[in-house]
Amino acid sequence: MGDNTVRIGLLGCIRFASKFVRTVTQSSNAVIIAISDPSIETANTFAAANNLSPETVAVYGSYEELLDDPRVDAVYLTMPVTQRAKWAVTAAEKKKHLLVEKPPAQNAAEIDKIVEACESNGVQFMDGTIWLHHKRTVKIRETMFDSGLLGDVRHMYSTMTTLVPEQVLERLTKEAMGLAGAIGELGWYPIGAALWAMSYQMPVSVRALPSSVATNSVGTILSCSASLQFGSTPTATAIVHCSFLSQLSTDLAISGSKGSTQMNDYVIPYKEDTAWFEYTSGAKFADLHIGWNMMPERVTVDCSGNEESQEATMLREFVRLVQGIKRGDSEADPRWPEISRKTQLVVDAVKKSVDIGCEVVYR
Amino acid sequence: MGDNTVRIGLLGCIRFASKFVRTVTQSSNAVIIAISDPSIETANTFAAANNLSPETVAVYGSYEELLDDPRVDAVYLTMPVTQRAKWAVTAAEKKKHLLVEKPPAQNAAEIDKIVEACESNGVQFMDGTIWLHHKRTVKIRETMFDSGLLGDVRHMYSTMTTLVPEQVLERLTKEAMGLAGAIGELGWYPIGAALWAMSYQMPVSVRALPSSVATNSVGTILSCSASLQFGSTPTATAIVHCSFLSQLSTDLAISGSKGSTQMNDYVIPYKEDTAWFEYTSGAKFADLHIGWNMMPERVTVDCSGNEESQEATMLREFVRLVQGIKRGDSEADPRWPEISRKTQLVVDAVKKSVDIGCEVVYR
Repeated sequence: MGDNTVRIGLLGCIRFASKFVRTVTQSSNAVIIAISDPSIETANTFAAANNLSPETVAVYGSYEELLDDPRVDAVYLTMPVTQRAKWAVTAAEKKKHLLVEKPPAQNAAEIDKIVEACESNGVQFMDGTIWLHHKRTVKIRETMFDSGLLGDVRHMYSTMTTLVPEQVLERLTKEAMGLAGAIGELGWYPIGAALWAMSYQMPVSVRALPSSVATNSVGTILSCSASLQFGSTPTATAIVHCSFLSQLSTDLAISGSKGSTQMNDYVIPYKEDTAWFEYTSGAKFADLHIGWNMMPERVTVDCSGNEESQEATMLREFVRLVQGIKRGDSEADPRWPEISRKTQLVVDAVKKSVDIGCEVVYR
Repeated sequence: MGDNTVRIGLLGCIRFASKFVRTVTQSSNAVIIAISDPSIETANTFAAANNLSPETVAVYGSYEELLDDPRVDAVYLTMPVTQRAKWAVTAAEKKKHLLVEKPPAQNAAEIDKIVEACESNGVQFMDGTIWLHHKRTVKIRETMFDSGLLGDVRHMYSTMTTLVPEQVLERLTKEAMGLAGAIGELGWYPIGAALWAMSYQMPVSVRALPSSVATNSVGTILSCSASLQFGSTPTATAIVHCSFLSQLSTDLAISGSKGSTQMNDYVIPYKEDTAWFEYTSGAKFADLHIGWNMMPERVTVDCSGNEESQEATMLREFVRLVQGIKRGDSEADPRWPEISRKTQLVVDAVKKSVDIGCEVVYR
């Protein structure tokens, strides 16, 4: 293990963390050296299931023990959202760099505490919104935005829906899901997508759509649509939709003054090794309106290498930043905390709009 | 010309009507026998441009003359929307069957007058919403709805946007566009698509989204989004969006309890001779969330025959109904007037919501 290798510990051994372990294992400059879970049994089972050898990976029955391990450079947090802020702050105070599953907290006040702790302790914060790091996401920005093929954004539509069986819906409590329910858990994606498309310009108003809000009997939000208005001229608007009541859909459509682009798998691409998006630019109906003057163009990116998946590109970016700080070459990059914070501010605004009867929330 | 041939006259010689002439020319049981326009020059130019021979096609300099031609069975109306209702009623009183370009009128009260005139005079009414007749539209209904692959509709998104150059936007007056502006001209499509997906169940509430409404200096609505709520359990919602400020987009996405389907060319397919839609049913993220458990399925319909385009299938349906009435075998089919009326009622509700400050309109 070279000096430059980033040594990572896991806070939380949920099954989903296996994906992260797989990515780190495939990486050349990061390594898992410790895992932890409040249940040592869960941690041991996770270690065995993921071929983490006790000779190289320490297994702890508490987060505290892992955070006290001085060899750990950075931690990956996957515990329930209601506990993330507390442990993220503690980890930062222990000088650990932070990669926190999304949503990283329950509201912007919690994120502010995390970011303050990171700043005070000189560590990097990044949330685990993986699609932002996908090669396709980078390619869309170049192809549609930087080149001018899209023109000015006028309208966006973005969803994240995933069906939860009826008998499980009632178990989605605020303790399990955080205060914002589906808006935090799922809405994080479409809200983040709208902000990404607007280059993180913040909306001037946010409104949950009254017809769209569904809750379970304990008041957890299960489904919600919202409109965001951006202060562009003419106005750019986004419709975001999240729901536990629809089968999986992850659509992103962006319509601009010159072109439009669509994809239906922006959160997690259909396949790990390849991804595409489609666009038209300068589209019109053909003469006599018997077709279009063009077919949609499909841009495909190849992600077939071990270090080309969206998890790998996210890890690479995180490791790059941590290495820079470790070497003393650079300070923590404020861009990623800022993206988390802005996304959470809009999640909070949608939640607030729901709370006040779907009235407009002016930011 | 057999007795069974439907003899059609045109009321209005706009360039777009050439498409209809082409379709009739390719049809085996309909024929254009007369055209008319308030400007005889326009009518003569149209006849020449469309190879309509003066030996077989009468050219009239007024709608009245054409409507007084007893040989004409049916008329196709393309004059400005503000005049359609008046001429549709007059044509029905002259016992002509009616195919009226969309939107057929400026509001539901006007449509009611047309439909009453048609009923009193025993003639068929149909509006020119071509995509409803496309083989693909029929195929989606079978594949997604009838088979149960979609499950219950939970959320829909539908757009019709087309860019109008800035210097032309100011010329979009209410006299030219009708009172509902873009909502009537463009919104007709996404509103109709949502109703189609709900099998013409009407929404229980309609609301224009405040952030979405743009007008020009004379108050014509140029851009608008709206949410429709249907009285299903759980609620089904639709977001419809229309705009003259975005480049061409005609997206339709329907998300259900079991599956979802998408297409980006529902109004006019990219190509006349083929069209497709994509769907997933039972989609989930694959193990470890490194992809989906399935790729979207693409269903393609072949429309390469002369009588297979959406215009041809619409004409065939219209001719079939007219032939039945001519033979005395059947009465006018109330289904098509009802679809027009319901679509217009929702257009009117969105317009009303805009007028009252984007408050909810309960139907």
